[in-house]
Amino acid sequence: MSQNPVTNPGVGVTAARGFRAAGVTAGIKASGTPDLALVVNEGPSFAAAGVFTSNRVKAAPVLWSQQVVKGGAVSAVILNSGGANACTGPLGFQDTHATAEKVAEVLGLSAGEVAVASTGLIGVRLPMDKLLPGVETAAAALSEDGGEQAAVAIKTTDTVHKTAVAHGDGWTVGGMAKGAGMLAPGLATMLVVITTDALVEAPELDAVLRGATAKTFDRVDSDGCMSTNDTVLLLASGASGIVPDADEFAAAVREVAADLARQLIGDAEGASKDIRIDVVNAASEADAVEVARSIARNNLLKCAIHGEDPNWGRVLSAIGTTAAAFEPDRLDVAINGVWVCRDGGVGEDRELVSMKDREVVITADLNAGKEAATVWTNDLTAEYVHENSAYSS
Amino acid sequence: MSQNPVTNPGVGVTAARGFRAAGVTAGIKASGTPDLALVVNEGPSFAAAGVFTSNRVKAAPVLWSQQVVKGGAVSAVILNSGGANACTGPLGFQDTHATAEKVAEVLGLSAGEVAVASTGLIGVRLPMDKLLPGVETAAAALSEDGGEQAAVAIKTTDTVHKTAVAHGDGWTVGGMAKGAGMLAPGLATMLVVITTDALVEAPELDAVLRGATAKTFDRVDSDGCMSTNDTVLLLASGASGIVPDADEFAAAVREVAADLARQLIGDAEGASKDIRIDVVNAASEADAVEVARSIARNNLLKCAIHGEDPNWGRVLSAIGTTAAAFEPDRLDVAINGVWVCRDGGVGEDRELVSMKDREVVITADLNAGKEAATVWTNDLTAEYVHENSAYSS
Repeated sequence: MSQNPVTNPGVGVTAARGFRAAGVTAGIKASGTPDLALVVNEGPSFAAAGVFTSNRVKAAPVLWSQQVVKGGAVSAVILNSGGANACTGPLGFQDTHATAEKVAEVLGLSAGEVAVASTGLIGVRLPMDKLLPGVETAAAALSEDGGEQAAVAIKTTDTVHKTAVAHGDGWTVGGMAKGAGMLAPGLATMLVVITTDALVEAPELDAVLRGATAKTFDRVDSDGCMSTNDTVLLLASGASGIVPDADEFAAAVREVAADLARQLIGDAEGASKDIRIDVVNAASEADAVEVARSIARNNLLKCAIHGEDPNWGRVLSAIGTTAAAFEPDRLDVAINGVWVCRDGGVGEDRELVSMKDREVVITADLNAGKEAATVWTNDLTAEYVHENSAYSS
Repeated sequence: MSQNPVTNPGVGVTAARGFRAAGVTAGIKASGTPDLALVVNEGPSFAAAGVFTSNRVKAAPVLWSQQVVKGGAVSAVILNSGGANACTGPLGFQDTHATAEKVAEVLGLSAGEVAVASTGLIGVRLPMDKLLPGVETAAAALSEDGGEQAAVAIKTTDTVHKTAVAHGDGWTVGGMAKGAGMLAPGLATMLVVITTDALVEAPELDAVLRGATAKTFDRVDSDGCMSTNDTVLLLASGASGIVPDADEFAAAVREVAADLARQLIGDAEGASKDIRIDVVNAASEADAVEVARSIARNNLLKCAIHGEDPNWGRVLSAIGTTAAAFEPDRLDVAINGVWVCRDGGVGEDRELVSMKDREVVITADLNAGKEAATVWTNDLTAEYVHENSAYSS
């Protein structure tokens, strides 16, 4: 969790050696809050991997960064809030290209190694007259303790900035994330940059990142809405000079990803409850994920949880819409440990369920096998409606 | 629309000859409002068809009525609000059976020709000590002008009762519906009874009903939540003695179904906007339906419409999650006739869009073929959250 003061080196993307970062106010946001982040890998290695939204409507920076990451090397990442640069046509793509060129020019890099990420309103061009000078400001502010400012600058409706860190034997993995709405898997509905000073080649980074996201960001489903801009990058500087144990490295990346994913759910728009959905005794992991996701997307259930109502009938009606292996009269459901539904019918007294805490755990036992999966979501509130109806975002 | 006074014969399920109906207060609902409806087919024909929820968790009355309808003949339908009798186990099924037996006993019928439908909270047994005496009260109240009382008695969170009628050449189709939440296709998340005095055999009724529901109730998606209790029945008394033209009869049933479906959306929980989503120039009708449904289920868009914000980026991000044939840079989107998105990018000025009316039309042109489909949904509001969080339903 990001409880460190701004002056503390070692937060987020600058926790690992070989990285500098900055977060500045370029004036892209009308609010005048920080809106441009720059992360620079100073090597000696520039290996990188990325996963991107599976939405077929992809923002210009996603199309650009997918090409950059294919090369296997990323020297810098420029991220802006205040505009998604999605559905902006060829001119929007030119804007992304120009942004990468500007970063390359200022830092003496190749534009083909500069990834770009954007977040904000879809369908609006970015104010390049503010963004390009902002790149110079950000480059001048680059620092080994800039990780926190960078995390602040990528916020949109996030109420807090989000960083995480994990340490290996002589090497470190750190990261930052933003995301509060339009959060659903497919993959990773958020902007995330994870850095490490471990010495790891791009193909292994790719495998590790895909493995971590599949079990973390992909299992966060706040509102079922898939973004056009989701980007998760993993950059390795090799500055520690250490080639880590493969399993330990994968575990560290997954730990950072899980930490950030949990923070994303904890800050979801308008949410008053964080809901962990554990599906157990499924015939397959895919079945468990399908059932958990169906529960996570049930608006009626999300309203009930908001009202602290252990309405298990809505859980069963959500399970019933899936193709997973189960018998309706063998379903068990617990809410915060009380098995309110047994054998598809009435179980323990629902009055026994306490739902006062922010975290609510729903356990669905399919009694159909030995596999399990967990998906995180949050409740549906009037505040969510307000945040997403009162102004464009 | 049901603007007729209670004393007017010919409303809803009693619009067609050969039917009597009643709606009474049995005391199932704590509110003391009407909660038990009875519809009786007096023949000479008893042909019937039904479609039921595709939720695999099915309420006891659904399991019962599926068997009744398989026989092709229905003499009476007993419908209660105030309890879904879903997830109530073998005892719940016995309650449904006992209800059908009671109707059969009072009316001198076979229980195997009595369909049962229930709606209300899942996971609670019905108060049979009130329901069974209520059957006697309802039987005593049966009347040729009882269609309106029957429509009133099946309401749950509905604010108005819903009936519709269509006339053929010497024959009539009439119907009633209830449903305000847990409205999503799969099939028909609602209770609906449609009656006709036309002389039509059960297999044709089945084909006509499936054809009508596929294009009407199945294309209503209020909140993406599929019920455990959805039931749509079509009963033919043959009392007109007329064998209708097949196409005219199908059109009349579809007209009544479409009318009732539109009324359901117009009364959806908490809604302030009715949203018609027209997907045009799709490669297939299935593509058009998939895209329309994805748009209909996008919470962020539903919030934006509530705020009268023509946020077409959320339409594109919803389209992008589908597998339908389209090119992202050839998508056009209009909101209330203004083409705010052209070629996947910014189109006409969004300031030109007026969203003051209750009905909002979103047109998505996939430019990928010649097929089309329409799905109805509504906006997402703080009132929806309140209705579904403040108490169990």
